[in-house]
Amino acid sequence: MNAALLDALRAAVGANQVLTDGDLSAYELDWRKRWRGKALAVVRPGSTAEVAHVVKACASAGASIVAQGGNTGLVGGGVPDASGRQVLLSLQRMNRVRAIDRANATMTLEAGCVLKAAQDAAAGHGLLFPLSLAAEGSCTIGGNLATNAGGTQVLRFGNARELCLGLEVVTARGEVWNGLSGLRKDNTGYDLRDLMIGSEGTLGIITAATMKLHPLPAAQLTAFASCTDLSACVALLELARRHLGAALTGFEVMGLAALELVAKHFPQLPRPLPGAAWTVLLDCADAHSEAQARARIEALLQAALDDGCIGDAVLAESVAQARALWHVRESIPLAQSLEGPNIKHDIALPVSAIPGFVQRTDAALQAAFPGSRVINFGHLGDGNLHYNLQAAPGVQAQAFLDQQEAAVNRIVYDAVVACDGSISAEHGIGALKRHELRERKSPVALAMMKAIKQALDPQGTLNPGRVL
Amino acid sequence: MNAALLDALRAAVGANQVLTDGDLSAYELDWRKRWRGKALAVVRPGSTAEVAHVVKACASAGASIVAQGGNTGLVGGGVPDASGRQVLLSLQRMNRVRAIDRANATMTLEAGCVLKAAQDAAAGHGLLFPLSLAAEGSCTIGGNLATNAGGTQVLRFGNARELCLGLEVVTARGEVWNGLSGLRKDNTGYDLRDLMIGSEGTLGIITAATMKLHPLPAAQLTAFASCTDLSACVALLELARRHLGAALTGFEVMGLAALELVAKHFPQLPRPLPGAAWTVLLDCADAHSEAQARARIEALLQAALDDGCIGDAVLAESVAQARALWHVRESIPLAQSLEGPNIKHDIALPVSAIPGFVQRTDAALQAAFPGSRVINFGHLGDGNLHYNLQAAPGVQAQAFLDQQEAAVNRIVYDAVVACDGSISAEHGIGALKRHELRERKSPVALAMMKAIKQALDPQGTLNPGRVL
Repeated sequence: MNAALLDALRAAVGANQVLTDGDLSAYELDWRKRWRGKALAVVRPGSTAEVAHVVKACASAGASIVAQGGNTGLVGGGVPDASGRQVLLSLQRMNRVRAIDRANATMTLEAGCVLKAAQDAAAGHGLLFPLSLAAEGSCTIGGNLATNAGGTQVLRFGNARELCLGLEVVTARGEVWNGLSGLRKDNTGYDLRDLMIGSEGTLGIITAATMKLHPLPAAQLTAFASCTDLSACVALLELARRHLGAALTGFEVMGLAALELVAKHFPQLPRPLPGAAWTVLLDCADAHSEAQARARIEALLQAALDDGCIGDAVLAESVAQARALWHVRESIPLAQSLEGPNIKHDIALPVSAIPGFVQRTDAALQAAFPGSRVINFGHLGDGNLHYNLQAAPGVQAQAFLDQQEAAVNRIVYDAVVACDGSISAEHGIGALKRHELRERKSPVALAMMKAIKQALDPQGTLNPGRVL
Repeated sequence: MNAALLDALRAAVGANQVLTDGDLSAYELDWRKRWRGKALAVVRPGSTAEVAHVVKACASAGASIVAQGGNTGLVGGGVPDASGRQVLLSLQRMNRVRAIDRANATMTLEAGCVLKAAQDAAAGHGLLFPLSLAAEGSCTIGGNLATNAGGTQVLRFGNARELCLGLEVVTARGEVWNGLSGLRKDNTGYDLRDLMIGSEGTLGIITAATMKLHPLPAAQLTAFASCTDLSACVALLELARRHLGAALTGFEVMGLAALELVAKHFPQLPRPLPGAAWTVLLDCADAHSEAQARARIEALLQAALDDGCIGDAVLAESVAQARALWHVRESIPLAQSLEGPNIKHDIALPVSAIPGFVQRTDAALQAAFPGSRVINFGHLGDGNLHYNLQAAPGVQAQAFLDQQEAAVNRIVYDAVVACDGSISAEHGIGALKRHELRERKSPVALAMMKAIKQALDPQGTLNPGRVL
């Protein structure tokens, strides 16, 4: 059986693109090193037609397929299970920019195109592809769409979903759906595009996409501002929306404990507002000029000082200074991992519910785990917090993770659900949160999801055991 | 059978909300007066629970349901068929604004809330609900979402889909899915929200929605500019995007024939650029001040004059003048109907393909129907044209419509499909374009749509014979 399938796969993509021997960790071990699987084979098709052949071969052999892009996912959705029977389908060879249409402001890319390469291709035509996230040097467009990736510019430009106009998809039956529309309006039937986006390879395999592009801004400015509490951060967000409108492109929040970890592990980095209970990073783009952008953000900061919602602020005076401020923000995850393992949450809440949620949940965690430290930071403008718990000083971090993760998650996720929030804002479900989803998602929604999975992949060929 | 169902419906919503006698044209005849149906009953539930009871009663009686909002649809998707056996479910009584959350910039509305009332409610809190279209005085949010309505601000804010964060839906089994999320990020499983949006009442009945709000702009300016051909209009669009970025909120195009019809039927309206082959309406919003908006749009128009992509331009000097310019644009459909019946198309194309498409299709129509007049206008910024054909002067318009509609549609839709365009940009499929869809949509996509319909509505209770 396996030998016949391997022969069919070799016939589909060429023998040297079917890997079965040697160290396949790059495909079988996830980026966080939490899941190590074993694939029957790693298959590397070079075209959409080859992907279709692979799917047909697997479907008729009764084998299942895990699609993978840059293998940077955080929830174990893109690595095979341990059975040694799944086929790992890597899209990395399909990495071409197929077309850029300036007048239509769109770009068509293959799934394996690395996000940074996509950004660069757009910039080469004087346009902006605004999807931006920490893994952009290795994650791929296909993975970004399969997980509906977020990142730092969602506030202005939306998630991967909002940036996508059309998809090319290989279905569970190995048929090719060419939905590569460059259209901003198309009301001809059900929204299959958005159904595929975020389905984590369980409903179809995305092989290419047409994405929206935006004008490059004339200027981009970054500021830090200090707030005494989260309510003040929320008030600043409202004020910033009113003052800047669509020019507000980023609104990130960082708690004191998060920035203290950065200061501890990266003492060489600047610390412009030391001791602030909360620090907000504001990003402002302007289509016209740097002078105009500066005048607008200065007016905003002055109004915020007058209102009392911020205590102090610094505005980057150069691109290098702006990069340095962003670098502080982006160093939090690394500072955290240097501090030792921690219990991560990627949650979303209505912005208005965040101050109360944090106050209550901080207190509940402190009561249950005295001395533990909440490392709270994230995309406040989108209502998305990375609300992580680090063991108390002196407590062995790995043991804390192993023993307390379920209890911590219960406290955090119960509080999230009570606020009508989400237990996965931007990372997806994968293998990690499948059981949480089953417990916490509306049964009516779950039943519809299962019916759709059954309808589009009745044999369970595509990434079984993930999401549902 | 019918008597038992009527009793069950009366028990569900109260006897005086089940209408079976008298003139029910307001529900049974569509706005364009192209479809007159006959319902078993018109049922007017007052709550989500009552909608669920109605669906359960119909499902167990084997009756089907047509959901209706303001009955302003253009494709016959919201009126019953002629069988006298369908239940017309009117959402009009469910018209409350349930909540406005300023800090989260969201608003939760019931499906029967009239669009204009929703705009007013947002404005009352100092916020903008940007969905805007001709029928806004009577269309409802539920219908807007069921058809993924477009309108005049899609360029900046997106379709109804992009404005929606969450839905409450009654499923085909009469269960209530509460997906009324106010979250901007939520990657917990398949995107049921976007699957329901645009499904025209065939997959579920939308009973409420949470919508995004935006800051009210400080100033809004409107200009007309003249172009010699559509390539120049497309060049102006690129220039406007670069100069104005997100401040560009509208970009409409009007052909000479369209404006000549307006001049003929509404001679009292202004005609600022008479004789222009193409007139572009530009709309620009600014978060800061009118002076800034004016400086930016003047700089754009000067650059366009220098580039040679426009011949002349006028900029409204007051809100009243801006309204007058918009009024010219909005008078085209009415001028057309005063001229007599015509063959309408609501098409979308990649913007870059529009000049070639129009040149070729104009020529093909002229060859087939000498003297016929293409009335071409629409949302060029979204690639969406209302590309309508009026009979040659002297040809009886109703006879032309009756006899030539299929032949005209074949020429237009063949050309649309050859450009990877859409035969329904913003109006939907309904009953009108169902056969076109079957002929022209990808068979792979159609098969997925049918599988989804079967999965979510196996009995065919919800709006059968529409879309699919």
